Formats: sequence, structure tokens, C-alpha cells
Amino acid sequence: MYTLHISHNSSFQQVDDLSRISDYVADPQTLIWLDLEAPDEREVQLLSDEFGFHPLAIEDAVRDHERPKVDLYDNYYLIIFYAARYVAEDDLKLHLLNLNLFVGPNYLVTIRRGPINEVQATMERWRTTNAPIGQNVPYLLHALLDMIVDNYFTLMDQVVDQVEELEDTIFSRFHKGAIRDIFQLKKDLLLLRRVVAPERDVLNVLLRQEMVALRGPEMAYIQDVYDHLVRVTDSIDTYRDLLSSALDSYLSLQSNQLNQVVKALTLASIILMSCSLVAGIYGMNFAYMPELAWPWGYPFALSLMLIIVLLLGLFFKSRRWW
Amino acid sequence: MYTLHISHNSSFQQVDDLSRISDYVADPQTLIWLDLEAPDEREVQLLSDEFGFHPLAIEDAVRDHERPKVDLYDNYYLIIFYAARYVAEDDLKLHLLNLNLFVGPNYLVTIRRGPINEVQATMERWRTTNAPIGQNVPYLLHALLDMIVDNYFTLMDQVVDQVEELEDTIFSRFHKGAIRDIFQLKKDLLLLRRVVAPERDVLNVLLRQEMVALRGPEMAYIQDVYDHLVRVTDSIDTYRDLLSSALDSYLSLQSNQLNQVVKALTLASIILMSCSLVAGIYGMNFAYMPELAWPWGYPFALSLMLIIVLLLGLFFKSRRWW
Amino acid sequence: MYTLHISHNSSFQQVDDLSRISDYVADPQTLIWLDLEAPDEREVQLLSDEFGFHPLAIEDAVRDHERPKVDLYDNYYLIIFYAARYVAEDDLKLHLLNLNLFVGPNYLVTIRRGPINEVQATMERWRTTNAPIGQNVPYLLHALLDMIVDNYFTLMDQVVDQVEELEDTIFSRFHKGAIRDIFQLKKDLLLLRRVVAPERDVLNVLLRQEMVALRGPEMAYIQDVYDHLVRVTDSIDTYRDLLSSALDSYLSLQSNQLNQVVKALTLASIILMSCSLVAGIYGMNFAYMPELAWPWGYPFALSLMLIIVLLLGLFFKSRRWW
Amino acid sequence: MYTLHISHNSSFQQVDDLSRISDYVADPQTLIWLDLEAPDEREVQLLSDEFGFHPLAIEDAVRDHERPKVDLYDNYYLIIFYAARYVAEDDLKLHLLNLNLFVGPNYLVTIRRGPINEVQATMERWRTTNAPIGQNVPYLLHALLDMIVDNYFTLMDQVVDQVEELEDTIFSRFHKGAIRDIFQLKKDLLLLRRVVAPERDVLNVLLRQEMVALRGPEMAYIQDVYDHLVRVTDSIDTYRDLLSSALDSYLSLQSNQLNQVVKALTLASIILMSCSLVAGIYGMNFAYMPELAWPWGYPFALSLMLIIVLLLGLFFKSRRWW
Amino acid sequence: MYTLHISHNSSFQQVDDLSRISDYVADPQTLIWLDLEAPDEREVQLLSDEFGFHPLAIEDAVRDHERPKVDLYDNYYLIIFYAARYVAEDDLKLHLLNLNLFVGPNYLVTIRRGPINEVQATMERWRTTNAPIGQNVPYLLHALLDMIVDNYFTLMDQVVDQVEELEDTIFSRFHKGAIRDIFQLKKDLLLLRRVVAPERDVLNVLLRQEMVALRGPEMAYIQDVYDHLVRVTDSIDTYRDLLSSALDSYLSLQSNQLNQVVKALTLASIILMSCSLVAGIYGMNFAYMPELAWPWGYPFALSLMLIIVLLLGLFFKSRRWW
Repeated sequence: MYTLHISHNSSFQQVDDLSRISDYVADPQTLIWLDLEAPDEREVQLLSDEFGFHPLAIEDAVRDHERPKVDLYDNYYLIIFYAARYVAEDDLKLHLLNLNLFVGPNYLVTIRRGPINEVQATMERWRTTNAPIGQNVPYLLHALLDMIVDNYFTLMDQVVDQVEELEDTIFSRFHKGAIRDIFQLKKDLLLLRRVVAPERDVLNVLLRQEMVALRGPEMAYIQDVYDHLVRVTDSIDTYRDLLSSALDSYLSLQSNQLNQVVKALTLASIILMSCSLVAGIYGMNFAYMPELAWPWGYPFALSLMLIIVLLLGLFFKSRRWW
Repeated sequence: MYTLHISHNSSFQQVDDLSRISDYVADPQTLIWLDLEAPDEREVQLLSDEFGFHPLAIEDAVRDHERPKVDLYDNYYLIIFYAARYVAEDDLKLHLLNLNLFVGPNYLVTIRRGPINEVQATMERWRTTNAPIGQNVPYLLHALLDMIVDNYFTLMDQVVDQVEELEDTIFSRFHKGAIRDIFQLKKDLLLLRRVVAPERDVLNVLLRQEMVALRGPEMAYIQDVYDHLVRVTDSIDTYRDLLSSALDSYLSLQSNQLNQVVKALTLASIILMSCSLVAGIYGMNFAYMPELAWPWGYPFALSLMLIIVLLLGLFFKSRRWW
Repeated sequence: MYTLHISHNSSFQQVDDLSRISDYVADPQTLIWLDLEAPDEREVQLLSDEFGFHPLAIEDAVRDHERPKVDLYDNYYLIIFYAARYVAEDDLKLHLLNLNLFVGPNYLVTIRRGPINEVQATMERWRTTNAPIGQNVPYLLHALLDMIVDNYFTLMDQVVDQVEELEDTIFSRFHKGAIRDIFQLKKDLLLLRRVVAPERDVLNVLLRQEMVALRGPEMAYIQDVYDHLVRVTDSIDTYRDLLSSALDSYLSLQSNQLNQVVKALTLASIILMSCSLVAGIYGMNFAYMPELAWPWGYPFALSLMLIIVLLLGLFFKSRRWW
Repeated sequence: MYTLHISHNSSFQQVDDLSRISDYVADPQTLIWLDLEAPDEREVQLLSDEFGFHPLAIEDAVRDHERPKVDLYDNYYLIIFYAARYVAEDDLKLHLLNLNLFVGPNYLVTIRRGPINEVQATMERWRTTNAPIGQNVPYLLHALLDMIVDNYFTLMDQVVDQVEELEDTIFSRFHKGAIRDIFQLKKDLLLLRRVVAPERDVLNVLLRQEMVALRGPEMAYIQDVYDHLVRVTDSIDTYRDLLSSALDSYLSLQSNQLNQVVKALTLASIILMSCSLVAGIYGMNFAYMPELAWPWGYPFALSLMLIIVLLLGLFFKSRRWW
Repeated sequence: MYTLHISHNSSFQQVDDLSRISDYVADPQTLIWLDLEAPDEREVQLLSDEFGFHPLAIEDAVRDHERPKVDLYDNYYLIIFYAARYVAEDDLKLHLLNLNLFVGPNYLVTIRRGPINEVQATMERWRTTNAPIGQNVPYLLHALLDMIVDNYFTLMDQVVDQVEELEDTIFSRFHKGAIRDIFQLKKDLLLLRRVVAPERDVLNVLLRQEMVALRGPEMAYIQDVYDHLVRVTDSIDTYRDLLSSALDSYLSLQSNQLNQVVKALTLASIILMSCSLVAGIYGMNFAYMPELAWPWGYPFALSLMLIIVLLLGLFFKSRRWW
């Protein structure tokens, strides 16, 4: 499935005949954006025929599960990026959506497996506004990447909400799900970090490398996206640390509560067992047990128990076990 | 809300007409400090009109939650910094206050969301003294940043006090709040580190980058602030380590105390149960139980219990469980 | 055991007479691949006689357990690499197979201890296709290394499957094997990382170092293999982290479940013991125990027990222990 | 409190008139050592008047709690260093003593808060020997720093002794103090590392920076002190690792011992409770209990208990719980 | 105790008159190896008199406990190295033997505290073979260091054997010594790493630094030793990780087993206590207890117990506690 838009002298146009792409590419006054969703073989062939991309670059762009990276070819870049979002299935579930870009002097090719609404939204904005966006490739690239990275912040905000909720939970009462939630959040952050950190490197390479088309004042915008990625990485690390710290504290509290309860058990059960022993002794059926015949035998036994309770209580107190 | 002060030939003046700023900026003999608190749209527009700042810079300066950073534009810097303090709400709570600065050859623009008394204090000092401070932008910048960083030390002192109190608590007796306090302190240090570490990088960039207005002997003062930030970062790391170490020790002690108590329970309950079994046996109602009829049956049973206590005691002793 | 193939003007030929190797090497139009499996002494001698390799290089290539590395000699490289696979013995077991390569301007020598099917497969592909592969050494080298590295992904997929299975297991129910499995997986990843990380460095050196024969557009393919190794290393680290995190969560859940059970024991046993004490008391055989003669004595005792149950229940509830 | 010594043509002289310092400084043939202990305001003023030090340098040198560092000014260094020692109060307690140095072409100024005997000892050695020490500033500086660093080794030896004692303790028997001791040692090593690591950087800067007075063969001695600091840092890291490892092992042993004891409790108590249940059953007062009337009833009950003991014993054995 | 060998035109000679060393040193055609074991003061003096070594270098070479390092002096190196071995005392115990080397253009001086058989063996090989070894200092140095480093592998093999034995132990059954063994192995690896890592740096410096005598093709051999050290460091790190991982797994298993046993106790004891309570109730001596007079009272009580067992069993099952 493809969409091809070109902009020539600020007039936009949707084109259906893909075989004319090479003509547009040859004209530096034309700005081209080709968007491919789940491209079929014929469309992949086009990348080679019309744009003349390197076979390796095409293979990387079409294959799944690549790591974010940027490769500089003769006069274009291949950039691999990921959009991220939380999708509410049973729980919130992190989805990472692969977006591959070919960036040339006057064209942008986006290749994706399924819908990524940042792409559609940016394209819409490009077609409907006369803002500086749309004048050249760096602006377009910035607009697209910036929208993707801004969504990372939305996602991090959801993470932060969950972390804070967890924090509250942890210090007030136990619920079994907390540990699973912490684990899930840590896993999400780990996976997110695995795309964000190399994306930061991608932008760093873009900022430093020399390609004529991507020079000039527009790079300040790329720098801005880079700063945002640094901030996201920072946040991820902070919240991973915080989650570890929260888990530790939670376990400490749990173990401490166990501690308290077990101590209480210890002390109470020792006292109860001692009293039971007294009762057991006077429950024996020996023919000759003088206490049994005493008029005050029963009160004596009960007093004995009371004395044991008091003595043990004092003993535990003195040992500071109570 | 804005305050605009200018200094011309060492005479200070508060100015209300913001539209004259561009004239002052054009005169290198004039030193300008514009302070904006929670700027409205009109005031933001001014940054663009009067100073000619880049739209991206303005966006960063006005947006919240940016990471500390420095961006070099044509002939001015955008610096994002944070003031930190403990505010006594229920507990002490760490507040990070965003302060953004535009630093040009002869002007300083401070933008903040709410009151930051370091700004007011520095401005007061500038207006009321004839000290070298106030002669040029680096001095002013140093005075302001130094005051902010000095407050980090005040804050760290409060942290150190709390840590030491916690240490005392931990080795003497348990209190449930300790774990929460440790967690809270670790979290505060984590968040503080997240602003201090990039601020250190900011100053490093200032020290290394080449901008004519910020050259000369005044940079020694910036170096001094940089050294202080290094020291704060150091302290944070040390105390984070120490808190982890304290938590570990505390948990070890707790677990060890549990250990001791459980062992005591084990041994005492085994002994009590053994004696109870004897009592239980002689409490059975069989018609033919020879011991029951013995004249010495009762003392015999009691002696049996005593022997069991002694034997078990010796056994536990030999196993070094006691 | 050796296999020697040469390609001259795109015609392939299997050669048996090893003593002619030096002639082939001298002819830059000829492409040579000598494959040695568990070479005997005579064959090792050949490396020195026919190719003129440095004694140290030969020693490293023949010795076992070397670390992945690349050494640049006069006009050839020694590359030490490892193929990895899971072999189903009792359990899946990680096998690391050592493959050493001499890479010269027009020859490739592969030395291995036993069968490595990536070698045979690549050789087969080389002989049976007229694809660009086979035209020169970098293509051959890329084809071979790429196949080895692709198998790392197959292996990682198996790891990921196991990790996900473990995750499911962990959060639903205990099984003792889980811990051993986690340990085994962590160990496998550790050992795999120990070959993959230096292999990445090997390719990095190849990409940067200057040797005429390995220059030119073919290096883009080596870059591709390098990117794949970076991805594998990334995956390994992610899954090591995830396994640690999973183990922690698992242990937390376990310890928490213990906690719950122990608390239940505590409370139930205290209640049962209290009731037993009442029963024990009224089982004493004193002559004068007024309650025993009460008509409502028995219901009184049972009610006493019930009251104790209720009071303790309320007490535990109020302490939030239940 | 000040002491001022000068050396001119190898003749030493104690000078009281501080106002003549500037004359001595001007004469490159004279070597000056001014030692200030807890300097008062007048003496601090002197640093500015006689030596012409920068106000910031003086502020740093007089202020407490600075981090070790070196600042290069026009033609002198400010070096901040710490002497460390164990002082026997209740326990051994680590004291870090601040020593600040101004190092110029022909003078050394030492500023300290209280007595540091390394300073006095080095000065004594300088005055009383005709060794190469004393001929120039680098020698003096080396002699002083070397003595301070040598004392780190003394301190580390005490640490090592304590660690080894702790190791012995840990594997033989518990004592509660062990955990506190480990915590204290870890804290000491943390604080010590916090001064030693930046001191290493200080010497590194000295070795690399260009200042005429501190050039020449004497720098080999500074290199030597640097090597010693590297060694101390190494030791600190090793022993911090070792302490963590020791604590872990200790806790493992503790937890394992608890494990054993709890298992023993489990098994013994289950057995005892089972026997008690039998006794309890035959202690019931039902009118019709046929066993009670059996002549062999009592031996039957005892045998029943014995059988239960044996069966449970076998069961536990088969489960490998015993 | 000293041994001095010289080689002149491939003829070896043992020399006793140490005062002629300076003559030999002056003749570049002569190769000298002076080996000092626990040198006395006179022999130390010789290092200064005959070779002209720097006092600091001599001090470092004679002093104990230095860290591995290399210092470049005018035209010689001081290299500090360690041989390592396991000595079977009570247990295997790691011994680190200090070996200091002066390496000059045509001489090698080895200084050691006691016997190090790598030194004697290399010297023996030198004297008895006409192999390339012995022709120049780099070959000699390589032969000596290579033998020392090869012994590290022997030692690591012993470590690996112990680790694998421990692994087996850990997953089959507990033995108390395991934890101590793990601790001891971790400590050994820590200490070994502390000499191996800086030794790697030493060789790196040798490979990079410029000294005429140590240039040329012989450096490939030093590179080889360097690679081996990298491999040893790698192994150490891998096995430290593995030991930590093994300890964690072991503790998890232990804690889990405790968990199981405690659960069993909980459940069994609750059941036993409930039955005992029934028995206790019917063991009470009240005058009016209707059940006691029932003909089916006894079977009723036993059935009650059975019903309790079944109900509790079902309850525990439903909670998945069983």
C-alpha cells in the first residue's frame, strides 16, 4: 500500500504513477514523500529501480526487528526508528512500531509494517499548512521525528503515573499484583530504552555527519529532537532506578512485617504452650497427686499459669523481644 | 510579570517600557537584566521581537520540565538550570524550580514559573552594592548560579543530617518509617542528581566554548561554580551508596534478629511439646496403666519431663543451637 | 582432513595437490579457499610452507580456546570466530564451535576442530551460484560470517522463547526447575556474550584497518554483519537484565507467599492453642473445680472458646494481620 | 598561628616578620615555606598582600570541606589535599584532615585547620638534613605528599587487619557487631575513596600540566606518589568488594542456619504433635471407648505413637527433609 | 643470592664477578641476565653502581607489595609483575609472587623475594637451546612473561574445575562449605584480577611506547602475551559473574526449600492442632457433657476429626497451598 505526494513550487499533488518517481527525484525543486505500508515485492523493487537504493539498505529497511541505526550511503541516509505506545489490551501493553526512512536531498521514503499515526498526521500537516514545514527535507524529517519522540513523553507520563500509584500502594498495603506490575514496568522500560538509546546515537550521527542536503539552520531542529531523546533516556534510567528502589523497599517492609508477626507468634505460643503444660500435668491420671486433692489446687494451678505468663512477659521484655 | 533593570555607567535604573529593550541591547555600554515570572504571551513575543531569539530557544525556555542544558546560538546562550530546596509539607519534600536564562554580551534574561528567591536576592545585591558584581554579564551570571549551587549544599546538609539520624536509628531499634525514609531520601538524591549532573556539563560547556562576551578572567568564577557542582555530585553519589549500604545493614540486622528469635522458639517449643506429650500420655484414660497406680508415679512423670528438658538442652548445646 | 577449492575466471575446481597452493596464491586472478578440519601436523606445516604464515599466527589458529580476535600480519589477517548453537542433549546445551580464518588478498583458509555446517553451506553456495558471492575474498568472508551471525539470531530466538515460557511459569506457579533454568540461561548468555562482544570488536577493526584487499564497496557488507553483532550483543544484555529481573520478581513472590502462609499459621495456631488451653484447663483432675459441676459448665467452656476466637479475630483484624 | 622558614644558599632561617615575604618571593634563590594553622583574618589578608594570590583561590584555601583539586593560576598552584588517620575513640574512627597548599616557583604555603603531623615531620626533616630534599619546591612537595600517602597505606593495613578478623569471625560464629563493623568499614572506605580518587586526578594534572617551576627530573617523584595513590584506590576498591562479598556470605550462612533449624523444628514438632494427638484421643472421657478397657490398651497406644514416629521419619527421609 | 649469565656470540657463560657488569652492559653484542633472589644491601647497591638505575626505580623494585606497572626511564624499563599459583595447604591457597624486571637494550635484571620456577625454567631453556630465544632481550622477556601468563591459565583451569564442582553440588544438595568455597573463590579471583588487569596495561604500554631496543618483529610475541592476559581477565570476569549467579541460584533454591517445608509445617500443624482441640474438648471433665454418654460418642469424635482433616485439606487445596 503506498501513498506518494510531491510538492513543487509549494503546490501539493498526490501521484499514483510510481514509475515517474525517478523524474521527480532528478528535479531538485520537487520535494517527494513516498509512504509505503507493508510493501509488496513490486513496491520493494521500486525502491531499487526508481531511487537506486543499495540492495543492503533495502534489505534492512524491509526486514523486521532491526535496531535503530543510521547508515550513510552515497547521497542518502537509511534511518531505522521506532514509534512507541501503550495499547490497552488486558493490561497496558507496550508496542514498538518500526518505521524506516530513506532520507535524500529532496525526498523522504517512509516504510512501515502497519499504521503509525505520526506518519499520517505529519503528512496531513504538511499538505494542509503553508508553515515552513514542507519546504525541505530536514523540516519534514524534524516534524516526523519530533512527533514520534513527543509520544515517548506521553508514554513516560503514563509510566510515571503507574510508578506513583505503585509507590502509594507499596507503603500502605500489600497486593500481589504489585510485584508483577513492577516487573512489567521494568521490562517495558528496558525494551523502550533499547530503542531510545540507539535512536539518540542516530541523531547524534545526523548532527555530526556531513551531507550537503542536511546542513544549514534546519539542523537546530534536529538538535532539539536529540535533546528530547536525551531527556527520555534520562527519565527511563531514573524510573528504572526508582522501581528497583521501590521493589527493595517493598520487600524490606514485607520482610519486616513478617518479622514482627513471627516474633508475636513466638512469644504468644511459648506462653500458651507453657500454660498448656501446666494444664496437661494436672490432667494426668495418677492415683497419688497431692495437689489434686488440695482445696485450693485449682486456683493454685491457675495462679501458676498467671505467674508463668508474667515471668515470661518480663523475660521477653528484658530481652526487648516484645 | 516582569522586572527590567539596566545599568549604564554604574547608574541603575528600573525600566517599564519593554519596547525600548532593543535600543539598550544595541548599546554595549548598557547592562540589562530582564526577569520574567510566569510570562504571558505578550511577554514571550517580546523575547522574539526585542532580543531576536530563535523560536526554538524561546519554546525551550518557556516549556516546562526541560533538562538542564546550554545551547549556543548566534551570539547568546540559552541555559536551563534548576534551583532546589526542601519544603516542609507533611514531610520534607524536594522541590526543583526551573530557571531559564538567556545570556548575551550585555544582557541577562531570567525566565521562571514562580518565585525563586536566589533571583531576587542576586538582583538586590546587584542594585545595592558597588562590588565588581554588576560590571558585566559573567559576574552577574556567576553570582546567580553560585547562589543556586550554594543552596544545593544547604540541601545536602539536610540530607546528611537525615542520613546520620537514620544510621543511629537503624543500629539501635526498629521503626517502620526508617525504610520509607531511606526510600524517600534515595528518591530525592536520584532526582537531584538528575539535574545536578547535566548542570555540571552545562558549566563545562560554558568553560570550553568560545564566545567573546564570556571570555576573560571572569571565567575563573565559573570554574569555581563548576567545582562546587562536581562536589555536590560527589556527595550525592556517596550518600546514595551510604543509604544502600545502610539499608542492607539494617535488613541484615533485622533478619538476624528474626533468626535468633525463631531459633529460641524452635528450641523452647520442642522442649515444651515433649513435656506436654509426657503429660498427655499420663492423661490417657486406659483402665490398665501401671504407672498411674504407682505411689511415685507423679514424681516419676515430673522427673521424666525434667530429664527430657536436660537431654534436649544438652543436645541443642552440642549442636551449638542455643 | 582438507578441502581445497579454487576459482579461476569463474570456473571452479577442487584441487587435491596441496603443494601447488603457493602457485595459486601468487596469481591474483585465482581465488582460493582451503578448509581444514582437525588438521594434522603435515597440514599445519603446509600453512607455513605454502602460505608463509607467521609461526605465532599458526600457533593461535591451531590452539583451542582462544578468544575471538583479529591480528593483522604483513598482508593477511588471522581472524578467530565462533559459531554457536543449541544442541538438544538432556536439556538444550550451548555449544561454541571455534572457527579460525586466514584472510589474504586472494585466499581464505578456514580451520576448525569439527564440522561447522555454516562453512560447508557457504562453500556449497559459492560453488553452485554465479551470484556476486565468490568473486572476491570480502564477499566470501561476508557470506561466511553473516551465516554464522544469523545463527546467533536463531539461538537468541530460542533463548527468548525460553525466557517467555519462564516468565509465564513464574507468575502462575512454582516449579523447582525454574531457578535452575534461569541460572542455565544466564550462564549461556554470559558465555555467548564472551564470544560475541570481542567478535564485534573484530569486525570493527576490519572496518577501520587499512588493507588493500579488504577495501572498497564490499565493506558495506562487513558493516552489515557488524550491525547484526551489535544487535545480538544488545539482545543478550537485555535478556540478561530481564532474567535477573524475573528471578528477583519470582523470589519476591515466593517470599511473599511464604509471608502470607506464615501469617495464616501464626493466627490460626494462636487461636487453636488458646482454645486448647481452655480445654486443657477443664481437663485437669482437681477434686475441687466448681465449673465442672455446673450444669452449664460444658456450654460455658465452649462459649469461652468461641469468645476467644472472636476476640482474637477482632484483635488480628485491628492490627491488619488478617 | 604561623611558622615561616626560608632557605637561602642552604642556610635555614626561621622568620617572624611576615611582611618581608614578598621580598623573599622575589628572590628566586630563596626557598620559602609558610605554614598556617587555623589562620586568622590578618594572616589570610597576608596571602593576598604578600603573595598576591587570587581572591577565589584564597577563599577555597580557607573554606572547609572542599574536594581535593588542583587549580592552576598565573604562576602558582592551589592544591587541596587530605591526610587520613584512624583515631581510637570508642571505636576506631576515620578522620580526614584538610591540607591546602599554594605551590609557587620558590615557595610553598600550607594551610590547615589543626595539627597534621606529616607537615611538622616534613618540615623537621627539611631543616635537619642536607639531603636533596629542600633544594627546590618539587622535592619539598613530593616529601610532604609522599608522607601523607604513605599514611594511607598504614590506614589500609589497619583496614585489612579488621577485614581479616571479620572474615574469621563470620565463618565461625555470629556476633551482632559484625554487621555494624562491616557497615562502618564500608563507610570508611567510601569516605576515603572520595578523597583519594580526586587526589589521584590532582597528581595526574600536576604531571601533565605545564608550569616551568614544576618541570624536570623531580617529576619522577611526583609520578611515584601518583602510583601509590593508584595502588591505594585499587586496595580500597578490592576491599569494598571483599566486604560486600563477606557480608553476602555471612548472610547466606545465617539464612542457611535458620533454614536448618526451622526444618528441624518442622519435623520434630509434626512428630510430637502427632503423638500428642494420640494421647489426646485416649484422654477423652467418653463412656464407651473400647480401647480403654483393653488390657493391652496402654501398650497399644504407646506402640501407635512409636509407629507414627517411624512412619513420619521414613516419610521425611524419603523426601530428603531430614 | 645472585646468578649472572651472559651470552656473547651465542656462547653462554656464568659470571661470578659482579663488578664487571658495567663492562658487559657497555658492549651491545653481549646479552646479560642478572637474577637476584632476596637481594642483600650490597647487591642492591650494585644496581645503582653497575647499571646506573634511578634510586626511585631501585626502591620500587626492592619494596614489596607494589602494583604491577611499567616505568620508562632513560633507556630501560622497570616492570613489576606477579606469578600466581595455587598452593595446597589446608585448602588450595592463592599465592602471588612478586617479580620485578629491569629491561634494558642488552640486559635483563630479575629481582624476586623467593623462588619462582618460571625464572629458573626460562633461564634453563635459554642456556640449553639454540632456539631464537636468547638472541635478544625481547625474546627473553617474552619467554619469561609468556611462561608466567601460561601459568595463569593453569590456575584458571583449577578455578573452573572448582566452579563446576560447586555448580553440581549446589543443585543437588546443601553442604555448608559451599558458601565458604564460593566466597574463597570470589576472593581469589578478585585478588588475581587485581594483578592481571594492571599487567595487561603494562604490556599495552610496552607495545605502544617507543624504545629502540624493544622495537621490531619481536613485538608480535609481546602482543601474543598481551592477548593471553586479555583472555585471562575475561575468564576471571566471567567466572566472577558465574559465581555470583551460582550463589544467587543456590540461595534461591535454599529459600524455596525452606518455603516448601514451612508450608508443609503450617498445613500439617493446623490440621493436627484442630484434631487435638477436639480431643481436648472431649477430655474435659465436666459433669454434664451429653456427648460423653452417647454410645456413638467416641466414633462421633473420631469422625469429627476426620471431617476437619478433609475440610481443611480441601480448603488448602482450593487456596493452592498444598
